[in-house]
Amino acid sequence: MDPMISPLAVDLPELAPLAGVRLGAIAAGIRYRNRTDLVMLELAAGTTAAGVFTTNRCPGAPVDWCRAALSGGRARAVVVNAGNANVFTGRAGAAACAATAAAAAKLVACPAKQVFVASTGVIGETLAVDRLTAALPALHAGLRADGWEAAARGIMTTDTFPKAATRTARIGGVEVRITGIAKGSGMIAPDMATMLCFIATDAKIPAPALDAALRKGVAGSFNLTTVDSDTSTSDTVLLFATGQARHPVVPASGGPVLREFAAALHDLLLDLALQVVRDGEGASKLVRIDVAGATSPRSAKRIAMAVANSPLVKTAIAGEDANWGRIVMAVGKAGEPADRDKLSVAVGGVWMARDGGVVPGYDETPVVAHMKGREIHIEIDIGLGRGRATAWTCDLTHRYIDINGSYRS
Amino acid sequence: MDPMISPLAVDLPELAPLAGVRLGAIAAGIRYRNRTDLVMLELAAGTTAAGVFTTNRCPGAPVDWCRAALSGGRARAVVVNAGNANVFTGRAGAAACAATAAAAAKLVACPAKQVFVASTGVIGETLAVDRLTAALPALHAGLRADGWEAAARGIMTTDTFPKAATRTARIGGVEVRITGIAKGSGMIAPDMATMLCFIATDAKIPAPALDAALRKGVAGSFNLTTVDSDTSTSDTVLLFATGQARHPVVPASGGPVLREFAAALHDLLLDLALQVVRDGEGASKLVRIDVAGATSPRSAKRIAMAVANSPLVKTAIAGEDANWGRIVMAVGKAGEPADRDKLSVAVGGVWMARDGGVVPGYDETPVVAHMKGREIHIEIDIGLGRGRATAWTCDLTHRYIDINGSYRS
Repeated sequence: MDPMISPLAVDLPELAPLAGVRLGAIAAGIRYRNRTDLVMLELAAGTTAAGVFTTNRCPGAPVDWCRAALSGGRARAVVVNAGNANVFTGRAGAAACAATAAAAAKLVACPAKQVFVASTGVIGETLAVDRLTAALPALHAGLRADGWEAAARGIMTTDTFPKAATRTARIGGVEVRITGIAKGSGMIAPDMATMLCFIATDAKIPAPALDAALRKGVAGSFNLTTVDSDTSTSDTVLLFATGQARHPVVPASGGPVLREFAAALHDLLLDLALQVVRDGEGASKLVRIDVAGATSPRSAKRIAMAVANSPLVKTAIAGEDANWGRIVMAVGKAGEPADRDKLSVAVGGVWMARDGGVVPGYDETPVVAHMKGREIHIEIDIGLGRGRATAWTCDLTHRYIDINGSYRS
Repeated sequence: MDPMISPLAVDLPELAPLAGVRLGAIAAGIRYRNRTDLVMLELAAGTTAAGVFTTNRCPGAPVDWCRAALSGGRARAVVVNAGNANVFTGRAGAAACAATAAAAAKLVACPAKQVFVASTGVIGETLAVDRLTAALPALHAGLRADGWEAAARGIMTTDTFPKAATRTARIGGVEVRITGIAKGSGMIAPDMATMLCFIATDAKIPAPALDAALRKGVAGSFNLTTVDSDTSTSDTVLLFATGQARHPVVPASGGPVLREFAAALHDLLLDLALQVVRDGEGASKLVRIDVAGATSPRSAKRIAMAVANSPLVKTAIAGEDANWGRIVMAVGKAGEPADRDKLSVAVGGVWMARDGGVVPGYDETPVVAHMKGREIHIEIDIGLGRGRATAWTCDLTHRYIDINGSYRS
């Protein structure tokens, strides 16, 4: 295997065309040489949109632009560049977003506010927006219904493999398709930890219902994952419904008719989120942390994330050490209700600590074998209530230091 | 220099005897071979005590013991062992604390509740308390007024240098002395990140006033430092006032008579706290982060700690990269009020980013030189208010992974 590709990489799935979406990529020379770095999606007239963005208080200019554009609930195009995040770029950053949207709007013949823009790459450098707008006409002329793989590759920065997922669901008995691409958590060049995700469905779903389904899905997928606890300035998940499928009308409030769609969307989001964790900088192991017995689901999530973000837990996993003492420490530092003497911890299905102490004579052999694998499973029972949550992360290895400790240039 | 000693190490200061304190160390064979691992302090009758402990919700049995013992406000002895943290050890852990205190109380002729105990080392293993109590009589017989260095060395686990500090201050015109020792953040064997600190003064200060001075001092020192964001189960700072100095009476409420004492105590605590950061696992650089212009001091502290705990900032510093984009990211993820377009960042005194954008043509030469040094200075102006705070951390290096990724045994 190419040593530069994550050992946790998964293959790209078959990506069939999705009615109402044409897309593609081009090499615009924004930062990289000899590779595509500019991606465009054109969406059918009537497409509705929903989005979820970074909670970082210093967001990039494209995040500002998308938040404002979403107020209309409609989308006709998306333009994404890789190599420059257009973050901390002042007025020039906002102007670059407006110029990009205007250029794409002219090609698609729509209002600029129906164009969504996203950028990923270095922070604090002015985006070469002229190169971007100069490349747009050729990119637009080459858009294709089968351009999903090209788009998945074109948004990569330091990712080691392209990320995509596709699902089907029925709405009122009619099958619809959902397809998404994502990038995130790559390696080698720093400052590129941005997570971007673009999803489209041929379903016809009003923007409020689409928004509700997306928020719930992201809460149960991307927001339960972490690579290194550092929240990017540019995280963006956008979902577009092209309305090409012929299913019964979906009300603005969504409701039971969307139940299967929401489940498929959640499944797709989780698939993409775990692909991002699998490509976490330096990752050699994918780690799942199940917390039960917390006083509430919210408390369980906080405990799970405290364990997932603990450098001492993550380095122990990199060292293939089932170090339950560090897991106990991380549970305790979460600040959530916990009683040391009711706490139990299992690794690889073996309960090593129960009710506040080590389990005398537990069999370490299967635990040692589990720790040598690629997928690590930690279970924690707080012993106080019925709150449950799951978080996913990767281990913390030398490669993380290599990737992020090298000088930018 | 010995490659196993932190490049940021400082020399042990001269440690004069302090009236009312005798102390020493012995090799009790609790975990280590051929080195001291059991320390005792005997304190004069009438000594008052104050303590601050870990916020971890899964504290060790010795922390439980000390919290209960502090309710009396009096202390006659302290017993500390290195090598075993006595954490997550159930009823046996509590019994070990009681047995240790009883054995020391017998030697000193005091109530067991005037004996404080502390432990540091591996989590989840039963403490060999019989070896500890067996070694106590010989340890007690050898206590000396000049045993400070022996005690500073005896509490080390994976520390690479012993840590101590001493100060003088006047109370009502009479000079008093404050001397403290600390351990923390060592290397090589994992599970030993515990921070312990023991301080004594010959001043005569009522327990409530002592407690107030200690809490304020710890808030401005240890609680502003971080090595890896993982809060230990055993962190303990204990302060004892032996009352041997002949100064005017200090009221229980403390007040202006303690102003100089409180300042000296704060200075000593900060000295010890920075010694711990200098011995941070794998540390190659000491990092100071000054935040100004936040909406409140509390907000400034949270922003400073978010930067200090960011793996991406810390790996950049290890790579000698003045990566202000990552600093902006960390400010934004703190969740505190911040306005990207009013934010300014300086490294080594050079303002690289101001009012939301890079400073055009700033001189990178002095910044590059600064980043190659041992002490890194980051200044952040939020531009919103008058809240200030400072935090200290170290960089994140390959050695941190080496230390914590190796199997426990």
